[in-house]
Amino acid sequence: MQYNKVTETQIKTFQQIVGLPFVIILDEDKAEFAQDYTEDLHYMPEVVVKPKTTDEVAAIVKVCYEHNLPITPRGAGTGLSGGALPIYGGVVIAMGRMNQIIEIDERNFQVTVEPGVINENLQQAVKEKGLFYPPDPASKGSCFLGGNIAHASGGPRALKYGTTRDYVLNLEVVLPTGEVIWTGANTLKYSTGYNLTHLFIGSEGTLGIVTKMVLKLIPHPQQTLLMLAPFSSPEKACEAVNGIFLAGGNPSACEFVEPQGFRLSADMLNINFTIDEGVEAYLLIEVDGNNMDAMLAECELISDVLYAHESGEVLFAQTADEKEYFWKLRRSIGEATKHNNTYKEEDTVVPRAELPALYRGVKEIGNRYGFRTICYGHAGDGNLHVNILRDQLSDEFWNVTLHDAVIEIFSLCKKLNGTISGEHGIGLVQKPYMSVVMPDVQLELMRKIKLAFDPKGLLNPGKLF
Amino acid sequence: MQYNKVTETQIKTFQQIVGLPFVIILDEDKAEFAQDYTEDLHYMPEVVVKPKTTDEVAAIVKVCYEHNLPITPRGAGTGLSGGALPIYGGVVIAMGRMNQIIEIDERNFQVTVEPGVINENLQQAVKEKGLFYPPDPASKGSCFLGGNIAHASGGPRALKYGTTRDYVLNLEVVLPTGEVIWTGANTLKYSTGYNLTHLFIGSEGTLGIVTKMVLKLIPHPQQTLLMLAPFSSPEKACEAVNGIFLAGGNPSACEFVEPQGFRLSADMLNINFTIDEGVEAYLLIEVDGNNMDAMLAECELISDVLYAHESGEVLFAQTADEKEYFWKLRRSIGEATKHNNTYKEEDTVVPRAELPALYRGVKEIGNRYGFRTICYGHAGDGNLHVNILRDQLSDEFWNVTLHDAVIEIFSLCKKLNGTISGEHGIGLVQKPYMSVVMPDVQLELMRKIKLAFDPKGLLNPGKLF
Repeated sequence: MQYNKVTETQIKTFQQIVGLPFVIILDEDKAEFAQDYTEDLHYMPEVVVKPKTTDEVAAIVKVCYEHNLPITPRGAGTGLSGGALPIYGGVVIAMGRMNQIIEIDERNFQVTVEPGVINENLQQAVKEKGLFYPPDPASKGSCFLGGNIAHASGGPRALKYGTTRDYVLNLEVVLPTGEVIWTGANTLKYSTGYNLTHLFIGSEGTLGIVTKMVLKLIPHPQQTLLMLAPFSSPEKACEAVNGIFLAGGNPSACEFVEPQGFRLSADMLNINFTIDEGVEAYLLIEVDGNNMDAMLAECELISDVLYAHESGEVLFAQTADEKEYFWKLRRSIGEATKHNNTYKEEDTVVPRAELPALYRGVKEIGNRYGFRTICYGHAGDGNLHVNILRDQLSDEFWNVTLHDAVIEIFSLCKKLNGTISGEHGIGLVQKPYMSVVMPDVQLELMRKIKLAFDPKGLLNPGKLF
Repeated sequence: MQYNKVTETQIKTFQQIVGLPFVIILDEDKAEFAQDYTEDLHYMPEVVVKPKTTDEVAAIVKVCYEHNLPITPRGAGTGLSGGALPIYGGVVIAMGRMNQIIEIDERNFQVTVEPGVINENLQQAVKEKGLFYPPDPASKGSCFLGGNIAHASGGPRALKYGTTRDYVLNLEVVLPTGEVIWTGANTLKYSTGYNLTHLFIGSEGTLGIVTKMVLKLIPHPQQTLLMLAPFSSPEKACEAVNGIFLAGGNPSACEFVEPQGFRLSADMLNINFTIDEGVEAYLLIEVDGNNMDAMLAECELISDVLYAHESGEVLFAQTADEKEYFWKLRRSIGEATKHNNTYKEEDTVVPRAELPALYRGVKEIGNRYGFRTICYGHAGDGNLHVNILRDQLSDEFWNVTLHDAVIEIFSLCKKLNGTISGEHGIGLVQKPYMSVVMPDVQLELMRKIKLAFDPKGLLNPGKLF
């Protein structure tokens, strides 16, 4: 596909569509749209357009379709796979002004929202009605719901409650031609042709631009309990995770963290955190519910499993502040690692019981190639974030040799019946590794789906495959 | 697409692939494959082939691909939308011999099965390990898991546990070209390109033939309690359903049944069932869990809601036999209706709180056109099965006028933010109504997806759109 450059005339048209202040053309103003949270990558768009309504999005897309301009839809830019980077320049459509919670339908436990709503803002708004929107990426304080849909985002509570995918009922989407559809119905069950809703979830803005969404809510659990368990053996910690489920536990979160992860977070946040000698891993485990007796019984069951796997003394967070302290430490690990060091983040995922084998393998590969990793993540889901640290590694190693090591890590994931991304998506940076987990025939099917929706290849080009 | 007729040579090839006894060519032997559970429809296939392995399926499909032969994959033939009817003749691939439970992975709460396994057989096999596969269509005693995937099947327990879709991790699929892929990974989270797994679920055998599946399991709840609540007002019963959830209830099933449904079941099964005078609707409500005190508390909460909505005396099933008695009555309604009368079954679904409006509308439309309906189904999901009875209606009415009435019913579904099928699928008989709920641009997207997978249009032709 030959893309055209954006012309003055088209910029004027965009200004007519969204209003003068919402078309960004100066480099200094566009700079923030040239990057996301992924590594140290920069691609300058030619123009950034900030629509307020579905009609405006459709009108912008129609102009791009007519003139072969590449379009990169953008949420909050908190993505970790480069999905929002405008690698062919062109038009960035920034969704931040479409940030209305349109209707909380308490009768049907549903909410209709725009894609620029920040995840945590929705969580707070529905919590006031006693309702719960569980998906909670670490970036929940800044990430947009539209981006959550693009990447099928998870978070700690995906363990008990499922990922974003499990809460999307219906999507309003602007297609690459500028046409607008709703993908499904606002129902809990749906068997009415190909499920376009599920096809859009995780499609990373390559098939259409989500402009409204109807999300499912559930009653909000009234209580949480939080435990921190230290281990001298990371592998024992990983084994304990599966032990919890085999014993009948059903925690609302079960996070694995290497001490260095908490260390970096504490340093960046400038708060105290003491790592006892010999501790090589932590599990952060949350139990939620409405019946405190049942929850305490569950904590006891879980503690028994932890001690049976040689945990040190299990610490209970007593107050809301203490709970938030540990969650903040946990959520800040990614940012703190970036703050401290150049790194590459891999989003490995395997069946839960294979986590010890994955952890062992990652460390063995790191030792063999000579790089350090900080591992942490949603252990209960078998989803381990592997942060590979740049340290003093050479450009040659970082840009060439490391590629082979990543292929080894992902090949291990595949061997363990897992895959290369659980919740961060493929975007730009994982694209070269798709062939590790899927054969050409499968990639070719995806390319054909892309072509069916976007025959000119204008929408978020250069991503996924 | 111009299809060819199956030749003697191709039949010989099929015999070489699967063995002589597993290629059916005599009309008397093929008759059972000419129909399913949908109305009174018959389409004779030219040949029925019964493979035992993925390789055999792939080899059969390759022959069909080479020679432009239409293929209709077939499970147990319990479908209610005509999805397994070979309307262009050609080759039926009957999956009944691929009926192995390959591996129950207790460590990872997963099972790998072939598509010809009967739903209830899987449920029993995993229950023996303390594990639970919740999806339970009324036909669970005979329907195949492959068919459940084709239609994204639900059942009573979808209310608390979700539909088939929520339990599929990974699928082995033979594509229309004869190539074989796995669609995903055996993981609880997945963000690795377009989600082909979810695209195949509900695609009704039009994109590929599922030959293996990896399904998610959960711990089996240890106890159930079952209540039957009679109502003199069906609308009050519908309103009570939503009231249960607004009050914080979380039943594992919440079924609405008109008395005539139980009456027909009891007559067909030749068992006693007394309908008290003035009863116009029942709710059958199940609560499950591991803590009997908590379950009894929940039943009390639910009873309070039922009585507040003017329920008559709520009956508790005391023994396992009593529970099975009520469930058998409930599950047999479809078959009993068919036994008693020609009928058309509509699988309407709306957001839960709109159920009273749907029920009222269906009855009003029936009164106005002059037909009777028996309504029943998964009220907690807003999923109401509407059986339209033939009675003494004329051919003209049944074949022509009724079409307008069905359009009115489906238009009402759409107006209430619902759709035309919650769990039965579109197949052949709902195909004419797709345009009621979706615009051309959406149907066109589906046609393009179909073309991307099946350029020759060979797989289950004439279904969906």
